[in-house]
Amino acid sequence: MTQDTVLVIGAGPAGLAAAAGVSAAGKMAVVVEKEEVLGGAPILSGYAKLVPSGEWAKDAIGRMVKRIEDDTAVTIHKSTKVTKVEGMAGDFTVTLSNGETVKTGAIVMGTGFTHFDSINKPELGFGTYEDVLTTTQMEQMITAGEIRCPSDGRVPERVCILLCVGSRDRQIGREWCSKICCTVSTNLAMEIKELSPETEVFIYYMDIRTFGLYEDKFYWKSQEEYKTKFVKARIAEVTQASDGRLLVKGEDTLVKRPIVIPMDIVVHAIGMDPSDENPEISRVFGIGLEKHGFIDKAEHYTNTSGTTRPGIYVAGAATGPETIDDSISQGQSAALRAVGDLNALAKKAS
Amino acid sequence: MTQDTVLVIGAGPAGLAAAAGVSAAGKMAVVVEKEEVLGGAPILSGYAKLVPSGEWAKDAIGRMVKRIEDDTAVTIHKSTKVTKVEGMAGDFTVTLSNGETVKTGAIVMGTGFTHFDSINKPELGFGTYEDVLTTTQMEQMITAGEIRCPSDGRVPERVCILLCVGSRDRQIGREWCSKICCTVSTNLAMEIKELSPETEVFIYYMDIRTFGLYEDKFYWKSQEEYKTKFVKARIAEVTQASDGRLLVKGEDTLVKRPIVIPMDIVVHAIGMDPSDENPEISRVFGIGLEKHGFIDKAEHYTNTSGTTRPGIYVAGAATGPETIDDSISQGQSAALRAVGDLNALAKKAS
Repeated sequence: MTQDTVLVIGAGPAGLAAAAGVSAAGKMAVVVEKEEVLGGAPILSGYAKLVPSGEWAKDAIGRMVKRIEDDTAVTIHKSTKVTKVEGMAGDFTVTLSNGETVKTGAIVMGTGFTHFDSINKPELGFGTYEDVLTTTQMEQMITAGEIRCPSDGRVPERVCILLCVGSRDRQIGREWCSKICCTVSTNLAMEIKELSPETEVFIYYMDIRTFGLYEDKFYWKSQEEYKTKFVKARIAEVTQASDGRLLVKGEDTLVKRPIVIPMDIVVHAIGMDPSDENPEISRVFGIGLEKHGFIDKAEHYTNTSGTTRPGIYVAGAATGPETIDDSISQGQSAALRAVGDLNALAKKAS
Repeated sequence: MTQDTVLVIGAGPAGLAAAAGVSAAGKMAVVVEKEEVLGGAPILSGYAKLVPSGEWAKDAIGRMVKRIEDDTAVTIHKSTKVTKVEGMAGDFTVTLSNGETVKTGAIVMGTGFTHFDSINKPELGFGTYEDVLTTTQMEQMITAGEIRCPSDGRVPERVCILLCVGSRDRQIGREWCSKICCTVSTNLAMEIKELSPETEVFIYYMDIRTFGLYEDKFYWKSQEEYKTKFVKARIAEVTQASDGRLLVKGEDTLVKRPIVIPMDIVVHAIGMDPSDENPEISRVFGIGLEKHGFIDKAEHYTNTSGTTRPGIYVAGAATGPETIDDSISQGQSAALRAVGDLNALAKKAS
């Protein structure tokens, strides 16, 4: 029934939290996930240990997935998309790609982001050299348990992580900071060192933004206990030396000197783009996007979690780069707003 | 009745959001605030325009206050503290300093933080020179509508903001980044310039951490449209010249040169400390603190908003430096968890 149901779009951290929250608040949740697998980016992209908990993604997010799978108040549609949204706040009729319709009082968008595609920074060597990876690929290597150069399987003497690939870069229309790459990268550096103690790990940064308590738990720990070397630099180019190693060229911006440093693996700390489905999402759901293409938010104080359309709420990286922890809080927050709408309707009806 | 009531401690952004959320979800909220005025730090400290909305604190937070004041499902105790918590999750009996007791099924802590006291960095001149202020005092000056040197009322030619006063500073036991000072300060620089167009504004920084979409909306805008001058520097000392102006001494860490720059007003961008009441809060509520003294969190994924004690949830800056927007989301998130507990109880009882 409309007044008992919240539709949740996306089954990543935000959507999983929203669905569980709707159920905890005594209502029914219908989850629509476009992929065949639940869990969102941490599962689909094979993240290793999560920041800041240190827990493996498959365990942490897996627990969230299991919670809604085991919940009789939650209905899940996998490999499904929304094709039409009719009606209004309190009384939406939503058509799914599998032909079903859902009557729902409110909707929570947990539609996430798209990883920046490093191909858009060709000068940094991704797609050209086998040993240039993204953070996502390095996470997968860590999950697999062994750090080796993809080109020839050797243990790398030196790995560097380039921060802000696809972030804070106006040349390619990414004016924003992706918020989490600094912390993820300092964590990744520690994970590499644990698996491959002989490997030296460098992080090339513009600014280090391990904000809040991440500073102490990640930046300092990575530097002091794991000997990660932080270099403030502008990297212009990644090329290949005659011996096959990678050459990372740029300027050390603290000493104002050009640097050319041989590396065995170069990792791009890729940023968070607006979901590439946002134009379609905006059209189908009738909600606005902000200027970068993320889902736009309503008034911040008494309509937190709101989108530009009444009755439709949003949580997580759909609205901009976001951490997993905050995505979960926002999922619960949006669920509460949606449930509030249903209760207001029920009150009005009675 | 226990199973209908959530107790909310603190009426700042997190607590106000939690109380409204509990009501929206169909339960009763009892709010206990130690101060006589509702609104928390933004109201008590007289913040000017909030980040990122640009709305005046008194309007934005005032709207949140009014919402719960007008809500018959919310009972408010001002100038009141909790003195005793008995019972357990689902059935707490809480004694207040006004002699009343509250029976409640779950508790949400929105107990906030304490501003860093600049007196603890005496070399930076606060308390010694009248024209050295904190960001909070500068916000109050902006709210009052005129930028003048407190010492003699002249319009300042130059104002500088020192970032990380009481943050990222191990010498004084503040290992954390306070998360929001960079953005608040870039915003403050713009507000100063608007009120006092002849004033030059400098920001001395270690790293600039305007994360996420704040980068574009604050850092770039402040620099490009408002001509705020960003200087990467380590500031060692603030003294006074013979003409009465302030001298800011340190090292420009990009050019590696000592700097001594005359300023008319120096603003400390003060950090967020754990609430100085946290030891008492920890004792009274039986909840753990993390190593810096903020309220400790439970498991991150399926117990988001949890503290170390079942039935007691937490939101906002009580757990570490936090933005107002995230504090509000976390308040709603914690409310949902608390309401979930009440529903589970009701189900069990029926």
